[in-house]
Amino acid sequence: MNYYKGKNVNIGNDVKIGFGVIIEDDVTIENNVIIDSYTKICNNVYIKKNTYIGSNCIIGEIGINYHTNHQRKKTIIGEKSLIRSYTVIYSENILGDFFETGHRVTIRERSNIACNVRIGTLCDIQGDCEIGEYTRLHSNVHIGKLSNIGKYVWIFPYVILTNDPTPPSDNLKGVTVEDYSVIATGSTILPGITIATNAFVGANTLVSKNVLKGTVVVGNPQVNIGSIEKLNKNGINTYPWMYSFDKGMPWQGIEFDMWMKNNKNN
Amino acid sequence: MNYYKGKNVNIGNDVKIGFGVIIEDDVTIENNVIIDSYTKICNNVYIKKNTYIGSNCIIGEIGINYHTNHQRKKTIIGEKSLIRSYTVIYSENILGDFFETGHRVTIRERSNIACNVRIGTLCDIQGDCEIGEYTRLHSNVHIGKLSNIGKYVWIFPYVILTNDPTPPSDNLKGVTVEDYSVIATGSTILPGITIATNAFVGANTLVSKNVLKGTVVVGNPQVNIGSIEKLNKNGINTYPWMYSFDKGMPWQGIEFDMWMKNNKNN
Amino acid sequence: MNYYKGKNVNIGNDVKIGFGVIIEDDVTIENNVIIDSYTKICNNVYIKKNTYIGSNCIIGEIGINYHTNHQRKKTIIGEKSLIRSYTVIYSENILGDFFETGHRVTIRERSNIACNVRIGTLCDIQGDCEIGEYTRLHSNVHIGKLSNIGKYVWIFPYVILTNDPTPPSDNLKGVTVEDYSVIATGSTILPGITIATNAFVGANTLVSKNVLKGTVVVGNPQVNIGSIEKLNKNGINTYPWMYSFDKGMPWQGIEFDMWMKNNKNN
Repeated sequence: MNYYKGKNVNIGNDVKIGFGVIIEDDVTIENNVIIDSYTKICNNVYIKKNTYIGSNCIIGEIGINYHTNHQRKKTIIGEKSLIRSYTVIYSENILGDFFETGHRVTIRERSNIACNVRIGTLCDIQGDCEIGEYTRLHSNVHIGKLSNIGKYVWIFPYVILTNDPTPPSDNLKGVTVEDYSVIATGSTILPGITIATNAFVGANTLVSKNVLKGTVVVGNPQVNIGSIEKLNKNGINTYPWMYSFDKGMPWQGIEFDMWMKNNKNN
Repeated sequence: MNYYKGKNVNIGNDVKIGFGVIIEDDVTIENNVIIDSYTKICNNVYIKKNTYIGSNCIIGEIGINYHTNHQRKKTIIGEKSLIRSYTVIYSENILGDFFETGHRVTIRERSNIACNVRIGTLCDIQGDCEIGEYTRLHSNVHIGKLSNIGKYVWIFPYVILTNDPTPPSDNLKGVTVEDYSVIATGSTILPGITIATNAFVGANTLVSKNVLKGTVVVGNPQVNIGSIEKLNKNGINTYPWMYSFDKGMPWQGIEFDMWMKNNKNN
Repeated sequence: MNYYKGKNVNIGNDVKIGFGVIIEDDVTIENNVIIDSYTKICNNVYIKKNTYIGSNCIIGEIGINYHTNHQRKKTIIGEKSLIRSYTVIYSENILGDFFETGHRVTIRERSNIACNVRIGTLCDIQGDCEIGEYTRLHSNVHIGKLSNIGKYVWIFPYVILTNDPTPPSDNLKGVTVEDYSVIATGSTILPGITIATNAFVGANTLVSKNVLKGTVVVGNPQVNIGSIEKLNKNGINTYPWMYSFDKGMPWQGIEFDMWMKNNKNN
């Protein structure tokens, strides 16, 4: 296949590079990577082994500044990642191993995304964010700048994390979402809010007050309807979800409590 | 123009193929089709006659599995279809004649979409769905897996059909939307809900209970405000909409009742 | 770099054209323009000087009609514009100087967009719209056909301007948003509504009644909570926003009142 290759490009063994791919200068691609057609790998990108990057992606984007900006840090894509077509990942992002995106994901500059994170189709991560391991964002989630999202968090379609208390302004305050929390479809989280550990935000909620640990909020205006266990029906212990769902989680096949005991820092 | 062509590719008469198009193996393109620049037609796709596919599309996508997956079924694009730029259609989709998309539409695997369906810009169809004939989805509609949408249904921008009653889980229950129903802008439909024939869901409704045939629901929480005829104002019979709107519908130019009488299965 | 160039193409000095760019017939590109890889500049487009167009864009799109339609007017991109990757701008759009888009923006036919306008990632402008100078649309804003948006307006993510009072129909009525107004995240504006000068629409509002000059509305159903000054807290005069925020505005560094006095037509 024909593709374009710049200077100082290091390509490992068993790498497959599709038709029309552009690889700019100072790029490293480890072993057994696949890069599909018409994708562009920009300057100073490092792609770890066993990763697949779909068609028409841009990895390490710097846009208009690319002729002048030479000081920026590396962009790193973790190993065994799966990046679907039309995704744009800006420069200076550090993405952990087993990273996965849907189609048309946009990730702006300077975010740290831990291992085993999935970000769904059409998500828009505005940059300067932290996302903890095993967190899942479903389709079309908007994460404002300065958001801080913990580990094992689930965010469902069309959720918006805002960041400007007095729009328009430059006094941004990011949202904090702590570990194990769930935010259901269509909810909007106002600037500076903290959603504490193991909380649940119902569908279409406008979250204007902090959400306490292990509680459920719904509605607009927001109402606290009690502890997470109140969501359980017919005597089935669905919540906290970690006890009823383990697919792809590190406690898969063992009990959550057992896994917790063995992993002090979770 | 230069383009790439794989093995066992059958191309009909008067087919125009744009610059940089990639056609993989085992593809059939019938007469008078246009495929615009940089679009990729993947393995085992069949494109019927008189269809136009815009630039930068991916038809028959299978992503990471494309080197190993050889058992999957055909992807079929019906005749006289119009697929706009940046659309991704996965493998194993069967799309009827006169199919139309806006830009950046994503359609995951194994959906059956009948003839004369339109799907607007940025829609995200998550796969394993049924969509009946003449149904229209406006921009940025999210259709969760296992949704079942009837014929002559209208779904407006930013409507979300969810499917997980206890997120996160794998116990998905799709939404059912029956024939002739209308879902206005910004509404969210909770998992497993049925919206019966000829119902109307007002803008920004959170639909948490089944919607009865020929009724109108609005608000969060959802309120039933009566029969569809209550939407008529100033003595003008706008609803049911089939009596006031026929553009592009099979009863265009004849009366809806007359057409119904002549078509027992509508 | 290799690219494709049609007939009657005029290219100025110091223009940089990326790999795989397609430039169709009757195109003018002024001095010092950069066009990045795989972008398509369609027939009859005029790009003014010092503009940057990112990768994988389509400028002057006419889709299926491109073989037959020769009467359409020019598409004009103003000088010093910045158009990010995957943006589609249809033919017959007139875009002012200093125009800026995020990624994956879609702008349909026949809109007039004044100078210094910014349109965020994933916005969908449906065509036949007016947008006044210095107006900013954040990510994922949907602007229905026939919308009329004034100057110095701020529209935040996932706001929807609708246009069909009796869906489905062809009797469209656009929304009007007057100068200096702010529409916060996730609000939906119903068809034909006017949001008067210097108004503020809170997050997640369903705007079903006209919004008066200098007032604040919130909620669903919509409630008027008083004049814009009521948003000020702790004795800080944040609103009207023109007195507290001037970044990128023509009154930057001078007082808003002073600037107003010197500019009768603002």
